[in-house]
Amino acid sequence: MTEGFVDQAVLDQVKVGKGYVAAKYGFRNHWYPAIFSDQIEEEQVVPAQICGEKIIFKRIDGKVFCIKDQCIHKGVQLSKKVECFTKGTITCWYHGFTYRFDDGVLNGIVGVPDSNVIGRKRVRTYAVEEQKGVIFVFIGDEDFAPPPLEEDVPPGFLAEGHVLRGRSQEVAANWRIGAENGFDSTHIFIHKDSILIEDADLALPLGLVPLHNGAFETTEEDGGPKGVHDIFSPETINPVFEGKIEGEIVKMSRPEGKNMLPQTISIWMPCALRVQPWPAPDLTQYEFYVPIDGVRHIYFQFLAKDVTSDKEEMAFEKEFKERWVEKALIGFNQDDIWAREANQEFYADDTGWLRESLFEADGNIVRWRKLADQHNRGIQEPQHVR
Amino acid sequence: MTEGFVDQAVLDQVKVGKGYVAAKYGFRNHWYPAIFSDQIEEEQVVPAQICGEKIIFKRIDGKVFCIKDQCIHKGVQLSKKVECFTKGTITCWYHGFTYRFDDGVLNGIVGVPDSNVIGRKRVRTYAVEEQKGVIFVFIGDEDFAPPPLEEDVPPGFLAEGHVLRGRSQEVAANWRIGAENGFDSTHIFIHKDSILIEDADLALPLGLVPLHNGAFETTEEDGGPKGVHDIFSPETINPVFEGKIEGEIVKMSRPEGKNMLPQTISIWMPCALRVQPWPAPDLTQYEFYVPIDGVRHIYFQFLAKDVTSDKEEMAFEKEFKERWVEKALIGFNQDDIWAREANQEFYADDTGWLRESLFEADGNIVRWRKLADQHNRGIQEPQHVR
Amino acid sequence: MTEGFVDQAVLDQVKVGKGYVAAKYGFRNHWYPAIFSDQIEEEQVVPAQICGEKIIFKRIDGKVFCIKDQCIHKGVQLSKKVECFTKGTITCWYHGFTYRFDDGVLNGIVGVPDSNVIGRKRVRTYAVEEQKGVIFVFIGDEDFAPPPLEEDVPPGFLAEGHVLRGRSQEVAANWRIGAENGFDSTHIFIHKDSILIEDADLALPLGLVPLHNGAFETTEEDGGPKGVHDIFSPETINPVFEGKIEGEIVKMSRPEGKNMLPQTISIWMPCALRVQPWPAPDLTQYEFYVPIDGVRHIYFQFLAKDVTSDKEEMAFEKEFKERWVEKALIGFNQDDIWAREANQEFYADDTGWLRESLFEADGNIVRWRKLADQHNRGIQEPQHVR
Repeated sequence: MTEGFVDQAVLDQVKVGKGYVAAKYGFRNHWYPAIFSDQIEEEQVVPAQICGEKIIFKRIDGKVFCIKDQCIHKGVQLSKKVECFTKGTITCWYHGFTYRFDDGVLNGIVGVPDSNVIGRKRVRTYAVEEQKGVIFVFIGDEDFAPPPLEEDVPPGFLAEGHVLRGRSQEVAANWRIGAENGFDSTHIFIHKDSILIEDADLALPLGLVPLHNGAFETTEEDGGPKGVHDIFSPETINPVFEGKIEGEIVKMSRPEGKNMLPQTISIWMPCALRVQPWPAPDLTQYEFYVPIDGVRHIYFQFLAKDVTSDKEEMAFEKEFKERWVEKALIGFNQDDIWAREANQEFYADDTGWLRESLFEADGNIVRWRKLADQHNRGIQEPQHVR
Repeated sequence: MTEGFVDQAVLDQVKVGKGYVAAKYGFRNHWYPAIFSDQIEEEQVVPAQICGEKIIFKRIDGKVFCIKDQCIHKGVQLSKKVECFTKGTITCWYHGFTYRFDDGVLNGIVGVPDSNVIGRKRVRTYAVEEQKGVIFVFIGDEDFAPPPLEEDVPPGFLAEGHVLRGRSQEVAANWRIGAENGFDSTHIFIHKDSILIEDADLALPLGLVPLHNGAFETTEEDGGPKGVHDIFSPETINPVFEGKIEGEIVKMSRPEGKNMLPQTISIWMPCALRVQPWPAPDLTQYEFYVPIDGVRHIYFQFLAKDVTSDKEEMAFEKEFKERWVEKALIGFNQDDIWAREANQEFYADDTGWLRESLFEADGNIVRWRKLADQHNRGIQEPQHVR
Repeated sequence: MTEGFVDQAVLDQVKVGKGYVAAKYGFRNHWYPAIFSDQIEEEQVVPAQICGEKIIFKRIDGKVFCIKDQCIHKGVQLSKKVECFTKGTITCWYHGFTYRFDDGVLNGIVGVPDSNVIGRKRVRTYAVEEQKGVIFVFIGDEDFAPPPLEEDVPPGFLAEGHVLRGRSQEVAANWRIGAENGFDSTHIFIHKDSILIEDADLALPLGLVPLHNGAFETTEEDGGPKGVHDIFSPETINPVFEGKIEGEIVKMSRPEGKNMLPQTISIWMPCALRVQPWPAPDLTQYEFYVPIDGVRHIYFQFLAKDVTSDKEEMAFEKEFKERWVEKALIGFNQDDIWAREANQEFYADDTGWLRESLFEADGNIVRWRKLADQHNRGIQEPQHVR
C-alpha cells in the first residue's frame, strides 16, 4: 500500500548510508523552505508539496500558518477550489467543512452548523517559520517538538546583516541527485563552457581533485547544523586546468581568471548546499534540494551578501536581478539541472545506489551519505497524497 | 495477474460494506445502460466498455445484439476495424473469423472456409434490452439468467406514459464517487452559486441536514428494485439557508424561491439515482453512474415527464433541448462532475475507504453501502481488457 | 526488482514454447541488426536500444565498435550529450570518464588525470559485424564467443551477389507479435485491399490454408541458421480466392494476377523472416523484428536481388527507391504494422499466450515457437536501462 517506498531487498544490500538510500522522500522531522515570503500576501492561500505531503499555507494578520491540504471528511484537496469565509479559516468547497489555520480545529460546517463533529475533529497543522524572506515548514510528526530553524540551515544563513535573494524551480530528479550534483567536486567538468566563466572572470578548473582523505571535514556539534565541508587548500585539493587522456592534453580550461572560486563548498542537513564565495568574491550561494515526491525536487537558489545598510541591500538586489539571476542562477546552473534530470533514470528504481561505481574523488559524497544516515531525525515515508 | 482489483489488506479492514468497497469495477450480474437507441442505426456496429468489459453492439432487423469485443483467436478487438460481410455477423479484420451476433457462434472464417473450428467455437454474448430509448446490457455470467430489467432501474423508470430524454458523458472518477456524490445530501453546498437557482426559481439550501437516523428508508422487496430513499419532511430533514461558522452567518442561500426542490432523492442498485421532482415540479431526474473501468464512469442523465399524448411528449422534448440540457444537465451538474473528479485521487488506491471520516449527515451513504453489499448479485473482477 | 519480466505463474501454465513465452525481451547471445551502415559515418556516434540494452556505436577508421551506453560511475547515458576528445574514445559529459571503444577500458578522466581507477575499470563492449550495409550487434554475455553471423540470419542473406536495400521503423508491439504476424499464413486476409495487388499484378488469395501437418519443414542443422519453412505446393497449401460465410461467397480476391506470390515463407532465429519471391518474381523480402524492449520492436525490411554487376545493382537501387519503398515496404506492410499494434494489448500482460485460441492453420506458428524454445542461446532478461 505504500507506493514509491524503497524496496527492502535493495536496502538490505546497502553498505553505507542505509538511511540515506531509504530517504527517497527526504528526511522526516526537519525544516524545509517551501515558498518565498513575497509569494503569499495577507489572507492569500498557497498550496505546496514537500516530502510527498500536500500542505496549504495562509497568511493571517501577517503570520503564515500551515495545515494539511486535505479535508478529513472525504479527502479532497482544499486547494482545488479555495473558499474562505473568515480570515482565520478555510472552508472545504465540497461539504463546507471549515478549519482554523492556527490549531487545525474543525470550527464549523457551513451548511450543517449544528453538527456533532464541529469542535471535535481537526486537520493536522505544521509549524512554520518565516526568515530571510522565506517560508520554512517543519515536515514531521505533530508530537515532535521542532528544533530551532538554525539547526536545519547552513551556518551563517540566518546571520544578521546577511541578506538573501533567490528563486526556485521544479527539477525532475530525486532530491539526492540534486544534493550530490551540488556537492560533487568533479562535476565541475560540466561547466567548462559556461557563459559565467568569462563574465565573472573565473579561473574555473576542469576538475577539483582531493589529494587525500582529509580533504573534507564534518560539523556535527549537538544543537547545531550538521554538514560536510570540502577543504580547498593546496594541501588538500588540486585544481586541474589541463584535461588529459592517456597523457595527452585534450582540453584546457581557463587558469588566467582572477577569481579562483569557490574556496569552500559544504552540504548541510537536511538538503542544503553552501558555496563560498560564489559567484563573486563578496557573495555566497546557498541551494536547497527540497523533495516534492520521490522523483522531483524544488531547487531553491539564494545569493547572499553581508550588508550594513538598506542602501547596500538595495544595490545588491539590483545586481542580483540585473546580473546574477540570468548569468549565474540560470545560465550557470542550468547545466546542473540538466545533469540531474539525465541522472535520474539510473537511480529511479533505487538499484542505482547498488550499481554505481564511485571513485576516490567521491570521498566527500560518501561522507555526506554517512552523516545524513547518522544525523537525520527520521525517514520520510510516502504519504497517501498524490 | 489481476490489475486494479482491490487489495485484500484493504478489504480486511473494511467494517461496513466490504462487497461495496470490493466493487471497484461495479457489480456483476446486473443491467447497465450502455448507449442511447439513437446512437445505433440498423446494421450499425457500436463498441462500449462497461465494468471493464469491452463489448460490441449491432442492430439487426431492428433488434440490438451484443457480443464480446474480442476475437477468440489472437484476442484483437473486433471494433478496431469493423468488417461485416453479412447482416447478422461481424468478421474479424485480422484472420477473417466471423461471429453471429445472436448466438456468438463462429460461423465462418472468410479465407479458411473449411476450418474445423467453424461452428464449434464461439464468442460470448450479452443479453440486451432496449427500453425508453436506451440500450441496456446485462454484465454477468453467461449462465446467469438475467432478472427483469425492472429490478435494476429506479421504480417508475419504465412506467407507461413516463417519457425520457437524456445525455451521457465520461467522467474521470470511480463509479462509486459518482453515486455517493449524487445521493449525498450535504454536497448541495457546491451548487450554491449555480445558474440554475435563479433560472428555475429554486429555494436551494446550503445544506440538507438529517434530524435523526430515521431520515431515510430502504426498499428491499424480493423481485423489485433495491434502494435507499431520503425522506424530505420537516420532521426528518432540516434545510439550512443560513451558513454559519462559529455562530456567525457567513453565507446566505436563497430561501425565497417558490420551488422548494427536491422532495425525495433515492439511490438504486446497481448504480442509479432518482431526484423527484427536479429540476421543475413536473419533472424527475434519473442518473446512472456506469462503471467503465476502475477509474472512469459513464454519467447518464435523464429527465422524465408523465405525458398523455405525443403532442405533450414533443413539447417536453422541445423544453428538454432548449432549456434543461444547458441549464440543468450541463449547467448545474457540471459542479458535480468537477467534484467527483477532484475526489477520485483520495479513493484511487482504495485506502480512501479506510481513511475517510464520515459524519452524521452521511447516514444515508452508509445505508446505501450496506444495501449494495447485501443486494448485489456479484462483484465484478477486472477483465483482461484494457 | 526486474520490471517487465514474464510472471512465473504465467510461465508455469505454458504448454508449448515456454522459453519463447519467457523471451519478452528477445533471445540472448544472438546477433541482431541495429542500424544501417549509411547511418554512421567516420567518427560518428550513434545510440541504439536492442533487447532492452542501451548501447552506443562509433565508427573508427572505418570499423564500427559498440559499448554499453552507460557510464560506470553514476550510470548516466553517454549518448545524452556526446563528447569525444580523441578518435578512439568517448568521454562522459558528467565527470569526464573516458572509454576506449575497442576494449571498453577507462583510459582517462579528463579533469582527474591521475585517478587510481584509470586503466583498472571498463565498460562492457559488444561484438559488431558490418555486412550488406547493415550493422549487426551481438547481444549476449561478454564471455560468450559469438558464433558466425551466418547462423543468425536467413540462409542466403549474406550470399555473394545478393544485394540488399532496406529501411527500418519502430513498431509499438512486442517483437513476437511482429514475427508471428509475418509468418502467419492466414493473416494475408488483412492485405485484401492493398494498393500493391494491382500494381504488382499479384494473384493474392484471401487465405493460404495448410492441407495437413506436413505443410511446413524445419531447418535445424548444427552450425547453420535455424528456421521453419512453409511449403507452398498444391499438395500442402490451398490458396483461397473465394471468401465464404456459411457457404455463401461474401468476398472475392483477385485470382487472375499473373504473379502468384510468394512461393516460400520462412522464419529464422532469432527474429527474421524471408519471403521468396516477393514483391516481384526476381526479388526476396527479408524482415527482422528486433526487440527494443518488451513492448516495441524495430521493424527492418530488406529487399534483395541477385546481381552480376554494379550496373545491375544500381538499377535495382533505382527500382527499390522509386517503386518498392512506397508500394511494397510502406504501402503493403503498413497493414501489418497496424495489425501488430492492434494485437499488442492482448499479449501485453503475458496472459495472452494462455488465452489465445489457435486453429489448425497456425501449425507453423506453433512449430516456430517450439523451434525458438529449443534453439535459442538464452533468454534475455530486462536490463536496468529504461
